[in-house]
Amino acid sequence: MPVGIRVIRYGLTRDRVVGLTVVTGSGELVECNQGLTKNATGYDLRHLMIGSEGTLGLILEAEIRLVAPPEPQSVMVLGIEQFGDILAVLSRFQADLSLSAFEFFSELALTKVLAHRQLRRPLAATAPYYALLEFDQGEIEPATAAFEACVAQGLVNDGVLSQSEAQARDLWALREGISESIAPFSPYKNDISVKVSQVPQFLVEVEAVVSDSYPDLEVCWYGHIGDGNLHLNILKPDALDASVFYERCHRISPRIFEVVERHAGSISAEHGVGLLKRDFLGYTRTPVERQLMRQLKAVFDPNQVLNPGKLLDPGSS
Amino acid sequence: MPVGIRVIRYGLTRDRVVGLTVVTGSGELVECNQGLTKNATGYDLRHLMIGSEGTLGLILEAEIRLVAPPEPQSVMVLGIEQFGDILAVLSRFQADLSLSAFEFFSELALTKVLAHRQLRRPLAATAPYYALLEFDQGEIEPATAAFEACVAQGLVNDGVLSQSEAQARDLWALREGISESIAPFSPYKNDISVKVSQVPQFLVEVEAVVSDSYPDLEVCWYGHIGDGNLHLNILKPDALDASVFYERCHRISPRIFEVVERHAGSISAEHGVGLLKRDFLGYTRTPVERQLMRQLKAVFDPNQVLNPGKLLDPGSS
Repeated sequence: MPVGIRVIRYGLTRDRVVGLTVVTGSGELVECNQGLTKNATGYDLRHLMIGSEGTLGLILEAEIRLVAPPEPQSVMVLGIEQFGDILAVLSRFQADLSLSAFEFFSELALTKVLAHRQLRRPLAATAPYYALLEFDQGEIEPATAAFEACVAQGLVNDGVLSQSEAQARDLWALREGISESIAPFSPYKNDISVKVSQVPQFLVEVEAVVSDSYPDLEVCWYGHIGDGNLHLNILKPDALDASVFYERCHRISPRIFEVVERHAGSISAEHGVGLLKRDFLGYTRTPVERQLMRQLKAVFDPNQVLNPGKLLDPGSS
Repeated sequence: MPVGIRVIRYGLTRDRVVGLTVVTGSGELVECNQGLTKNATGYDLRHLMIGSEGTLGLILEAEIRLVAPPEPQSVMVLGIEQFGDILAVLSRFQADLSLSAFEFFSELALTKVLAHRQLRRPLAATAPYYALLEFDQGEIEPATAAFEACVAQGLVNDGVLSQSEAQARDLWALREGISESIAPFSPYKNDISVKVSQVPQFLVEVEAVVSDSYPDLEVCWYGHIGDGNLHLNILKPDALDASVFYERCHRISPRIFEVVERHAGSISAEHGVGLLKRDFLGYTRTPVERQLMRQLKAVFDPNQVLNPGKLLDPGSS
């Protein structure tokens, strides 16, 4: 079973927030954790504030633990014929080396980046999906052995390994350039996550929902497989009016979220809830949890002055 | 300014807890975070439960993200003449290598371990304090250079570097054996933390409190400097009756906690609050925080059935 990877490349992890200075909705000043590395004196209000989207307190100051920048890494891009094989590839590499990233993108996503940035294909062969792996330069040998084993097992049809930092950056650009490359297609975005082990079946079921409802819509997938986090982008056909397109997608969303719920996943992996997903929160958080959340909100913000109406339906607390 | 080190050697960090199944005081079942790596759907109840000492919910199940065991590490023990120099030593090593531990212990602690385990001294020279450093075996060269620089600057008077995994374990035993070695002296223990940068001044002030009140009591220091976490152990003199000894120490505690408060530290770095430190919680958490904590307790446990009386004085919520 593959182990989850925390892709610190993509941002600040909550354990590096060592202090928060906050004003509650009652106007009380709270110094959460005071910058300490170790502190076992009861409820950790800092971690309650993180991800609360400004609904529990106004953050005035944050103290962040710095870490050394990572050593230059090697990057490999692999062609994957069957999406169902992607966890076998992840497991094979994890057996012998420590990955710092395991990303994926579809052929459609790749063609959009290549066109937008006027780049050449990274591999001679095409494949419906690609995986991007990152690891210490000292692990090139086990990585090459893992690659050869994956090819021999038919899991991977082609691959490329960066030979320099510049090449590693160029390979990352294929993944990191996707968002800007599909922007002209007014994509309808979903940012969803499940446990890593659920990813292949989850993707199949979500694709079935979209193609079943609207076989004419193009789905562009990419994301952080190592975190179980998939970005689903439905592209607007040129001919389709934007409002009609969004209306259609909105109608699909609850069906996609039903798949998320069935896999005990999250309807928002990275980007929060706000207003846009507020009314869908129940697909990830149970009625008990939402009621607890409303009560927590009432403790910190009894007069509902902090970001009112966001994140939580005020309900009947 | 030295950077904090998270000494994962010493246990499970909260970011590796990916799911908790909890029953609240109202008998509601809550699945916190469902094992997901990424989930940005509002208040993270999992992190509120962690460290709540059973006062918010009964944890039925915990799902933990595994990590690969660390590679074998090298260990260095250094003699430190002036405790005030210890951060300069830490900074010098951190400038060129990535430490996985930076521990310290006093000469008194060392003598107790040597006697208890019948070991030989690690260094030819004695020193009032010792630092134990751990790092990747690949970093022996910069570590040796940093050691030489520290000796040249007069920060360090002697040092030893492990030449094998067995020697690394033996050097760790000098630090890890302290707790059991001082147990026969019925120590009065305090587990306190401050920001790493405050450690030297903090130690001086705490020592002054103890020696000022009871110059006849021996203080045995050790701890995780890299985390700002100091274990203060006051040893019971053989001749002193246990109840008299504890009574004396209890009378010093508030004065030590005043020093903690002045440095915005924690009266319990690792070991929680429970009953023993409940009435001292105010030295680390403000009245506003304690009131918020009582209200949070009331949300999850309105009938006060979960670990009643622990952690928090019920007060007048």
